[in-house]
Amino acid sequence: MSAIDDLVGEFARLPGIGRKTALRLAFHLLKAPDDDARRLARSIIEVRDKVRPCERCGNLSDSTPCAICLSPRRDPATLCVVEEASDIMAIERTGEYRGLYHVLGGRLSPLDGIGPSELNVPPLLARAGTGEVREVVLATNPSVEGEATALYLARLLSPLGLRVTRIARGLPVGGDLEYADGVTIAEALAGRREL
Amino acid sequence: MSAIDDLVGEFARLPGIGRKTALRLAFHLLKAPDDDARRLARSIIEVRDKVRPCERCGNLSDSTPCAICLSPRRDPATLCVVEEASDIMAIERTGEYRGLYHVLGGRLSPLDGIGPSELNVPPLLARAGTGEVREVVLATNPSVEGEATALYLARLLSPLGLRVTRIARGLPVGGDLEYADGVTIAEALAGRREL
Repeated sequence: MSAIDDLVGEFARLPGIGRKTALRLAFHLLKAPDDDARRLARSIIEVRDKVRPCERCGNLSDSTPCAICLSPRRDPATLCVVEEASDIMAIERTGEYRGLYHVLGGRLSPLDGIGPSELNVPPLLARAGTGEVREVVLATNPSVEGEATALYLARLLSPLGLRVTRIARGLPVGGDLEYADGVTIAEALAGRREL
Repeated sequence: MSAIDDLVGEFARLPGIGRKTALRLAFHLLKAPDDDARRLARSIIEVRDKVRPCERCGNLSDSTPCAICLSPRRDPATLCVVEEASDIMAIERTGEYRGLYHVLGGRLSPLDGIGPSELNVPPLLARAGTGEVREVVLATNPSVEGEATALYLARLLSPLGLRVTRIARGLPVGGDLEYADGVTIAEALAGRREL
């Protein structure tokens, strides 16, 4: 195996990258300025060395607590519950949400053996029960499992006397929050309703 | 800028990779086994450190002369002229060609100031004139500049008493050899004709 074949193979292992795209990327890096290629390699190493889950919300970040949890400009009375840390980035891109987050680390999926104990539910209940939080926005994906997870959490959270809301079904049903466009996500946030 | 933002930015600089794909790739590397991410980073560095143009044919390779030039199983009587080293990989994937290669490093393009002296033409004439080569296959892209380059080279090479052929127009006109599928490239090679 040559160094080019190795790199093509590594690119082709990435999701959504076929052999032709991998080949194009490899030759692009061969022709690009040396600095560009090394900066990409360094960024990959650094993301693995530096990025850790935030101990409060589960967001992936260089620091813990993460910049969102520490920001004095964020509203600690609102908590947005998402399945994955990548969903936070999708919501942050809209610039429409000023509260804090909580990452579940997945969604209920009995067929895959993922029950409540596999998700970050107890820390969510602890955070929601301190009295500081007045609203929990359930922003799990609009899929069957995401809806079931939202209903389950709503039942757990409602005894705490909070406002529990669900993002509007502005997102295409069966879709994936991570890939939705900013306007759709913003509309879904604005149209959230009581559960 | 966080490490994740840095990596997303570096991915988004690659050709054909938008911000959403860059985001998906970055989060994939965050979730993938540590080894996978480091192997990709190492492959990028190695491709820059090891890969150099072959001193004979111009192919990009870990060694010079490259493995194709040194292979005893290749036919030194046939020379295939391509614009870029990436075109060699596209032709090799078909498994239909057993001769050697010569990389021009581009194509004639007067509007961009690329004339014959900007391309590896003199080394091609030297290789074609040793008496060992009996056929030169002109496999420049089927674009206007590629055709003009082939015609120009055919005129230079025909006084040497060689067979000078052009790959068939099985390739879609205006297309790019690097992205064509293997069957089309194989057909174009099989249907090559005298110029």
